[in-house]
Amino acid sequence: MWSTQGISKILGVRIPLIQAPMAGPVTTPELIAAVANAGGLGSLGAGYMNPNDMRNTISAIRQLTDKPFAVNLFVPENHSASVEQLKTMQTILTNVCQELKIEIDVPRAPFLPAFDEQIEIIIEEKIPICSFTFGVPSQTSIAKLKKQNIILIGTATCLEEAKLLENSGMDIIVAQGSEAGGHRGTFARPYDEGLIGLMALVPQLVDHIQLPIVAAGGIMDTRGIRAAFALGAAGVQMGTAFLACPESGVSAIFQKILLHNDKTTLTNAYSGKYVRALRNKFIENMKPYAAQILNYPIQNNMTIPLRKEAIKKENLDFIAMWSGQAAYLSQAISAAELIKKWDEELQK
Amino acid sequence: MWSTQGISKILGVRIPLIQAPMAGPVTTPELIAAVANAGGLGSLGAGYMNPNDMRNTISAIRQLTDKPFAVNLFVPENHSASVEQLKTMQTILTNVCQELKIEIDVPRAPFLPAFDEQIEIIIEEKIPICSFTFGVPSQTSIAKLKKQNIILIGTATCLEEAKLLENSGMDIIVAQGSEAGGHRGTFARPYDEGLIGLMALVPQLVDHIQLPIVAAGGIMDTRGIRAAFALGAAGVQMGTAFLACPESGVSAIFQKILLHNDKTTLTNAYSGKYVRALRNKFIENMKPYAAQILNYPIQNNMTIPLRKEAIKKENLDFIAMWSGQAAYLSQAISAAELIKKWDEELQK
Repeated sequence: MWSTQGISKILGVRIPLIQAPMAGPVTTPELIAAVANAGGLGSLGAGYMNPNDMRNTISAIRQLTDKPFAVNLFVPENHSASVEQLKTMQTILTNVCQELKIEIDVPRAPFLPAFDEQIEIIIEEKIPICSFTFGVPSQTSIAKLKKQNIILIGTATCLEEAKLLENSGMDIIVAQGSEAGGHRGTFARPYDEGLIGLMALVPQLVDHIQLPIVAAGGIMDTRGIRAAFALGAAGVQMGTAFLACPESGVSAIFQKILLHNDKTTLTNAYSGKYVRALRNKFIENMKPYAAQILNYPIQNNMTIPLRKEAIKKENLDFIAMWSGQAAYLSQAISAAELIKKWDEELQK
Repeated sequence: MWSTQGISKILGVRIPLIQAPMAGPVTTPELIAAVANAGGLGSLGAGYMNPNDMRNTISAIRQLTDKPFAVNLFVPENHSASVEQLKTMQTILTNVCQELKIEIDVPRAPFLPAFDEQIEIIIEEKIPICSFTFGVPSQTSIAKLKKQNIILIGTATCLEEAKLLENSGMDIIVAQGSEAGGHRGTFARPYDEGLIGLMALVPQLVDHIQLPIVAAGGIMDTRGIRAAFALGAAGVQMGTAFLACPESGVSAIFQKILLHNDKTTLTNAYSGKYVRALRNKFIENMKPYAAQILNYPIQNNMTIPLRKEAIKKENLDFIAMWSGQAAYLSQAISAAELIKKWDEELQK
């Protein structure tokens, strides 16, 4: 089942397993390299990285592995906030996060690194695979990358989005099921219309899309991997499954509660875009301010300091804990051991 | 894979496939008997039926098959509405449904048939299998049924509910994934905390519950069936997959649009309890009245006349179209042919 055929050949890996490109501190060079060295495809979540960070991290990964890995970028979208809106959210966050005793600053534009510069780094660094979340990149960007024979992966949460990505020239489509942790990739519909479970999503995409489909969301072990293949997926993408690994960059306290938690929720209070995360007090206390949440990524930038402080103080009430719906099945062993175990189980 | 072992033996069927007990006009005697005669377990959705209706329908099914079938009941829950609340909803529905030109009446208690009388019919009619939705029946009811060796099936949407059902003495647990059409079975949490995709839900239940788990939600063909078994389910329950069959009791116009629709939503405007249904104008237009929706099943009883009229007028803007997230994969062939096809595919 984990043959090197088809999608594995396209990706240049032994097994069709992609470690999900979780942005922020999660996808450390150690995690990416461990997955790559074990035969899967590690991915760097570079959406928030500026060119220098990208270069340094790519170099750090290359110190640890000579295997291919992917870099993931966020397709930029329009965002704006008036001074008044920024100040209102500053007041709200200051009140809601009082016990953290931090100052909430008003972030300044630009709120995201320049996408075009990120694309240049991908090309300069000869990254073999580039994946995208939150939309379809411009035809100019796609043409630039394709000219270098870079394999492109798009993220869809419904058939409509998969068709847009297929028509844009992507090589592979990740089907993000509603089970998935972290940001919802929905871009062609309101986010709640893109919450489709993998059991329903994968066969629909397989029937109507010519490209290989990679299933993502709630897959935690070989049961999920086999199920994804049964549905017609050519590969799997797993994120939450690696969170409890020692190589992952999430805080130890988050890793600990992850193992016994099946209560996730969808919130836009941390970033301005809906994410699936473990429930906590911050998410609950921000509910009355739904109408004041700023555009992504402005809200994200405004909450960075409080999230950092929460980690420092080990305060789970405020830590942003992106997680899929099956965190319960997490295993606190190394990524290499996990993949070896799955590999052996699938050989049976 | 479709052996008569384990769960099939418990249910007395050849293949571990349950036709979902969809209440209302959907589960006709013809559909239930077709599934039973093909080797699966047909289920009568008797939640809204009074004892006489139950007796007559059971007799009609027995004219068509001598195979076992299940009867499903709704575990009753508290509900009330003041005269003022009833009148407010009457006005809202009258306005929203103006173009249907019908009178909205205020329904009177009792709003549901007596659960205890339904249980008596199950016993009198020697129904071999009784399934439940919306909660855990009383220990008295369970004891009565168990005394007659009736097999009991409970419906869970999260591990917490599965544990409650296991402890109550159920024999089998249906894991209702977020993909499923119709009413959400969630009873121990707010409905939105019970929206877990099967990919995440099934392995969690399999790991922590000793009873056989039946996967339900978004399963439309042998890809879904194989995936459910890969996740550890002992059987599958399929509802939407049978909606387009000529034996199903849904309206022809609904059957037609079902085949090309992947836009479901969750609404409580039809019944007072959240259901997954195809989007339409009624659901959209009822959104501003979220705070006025009456308790289930009072809201349900109040909307019955408008739903009937909508079917009569073939007006999709108002027809209640319960559907899972993979309606797109529906096939307009008979239930017998469907099961024969799946059976052959799984033998391969």
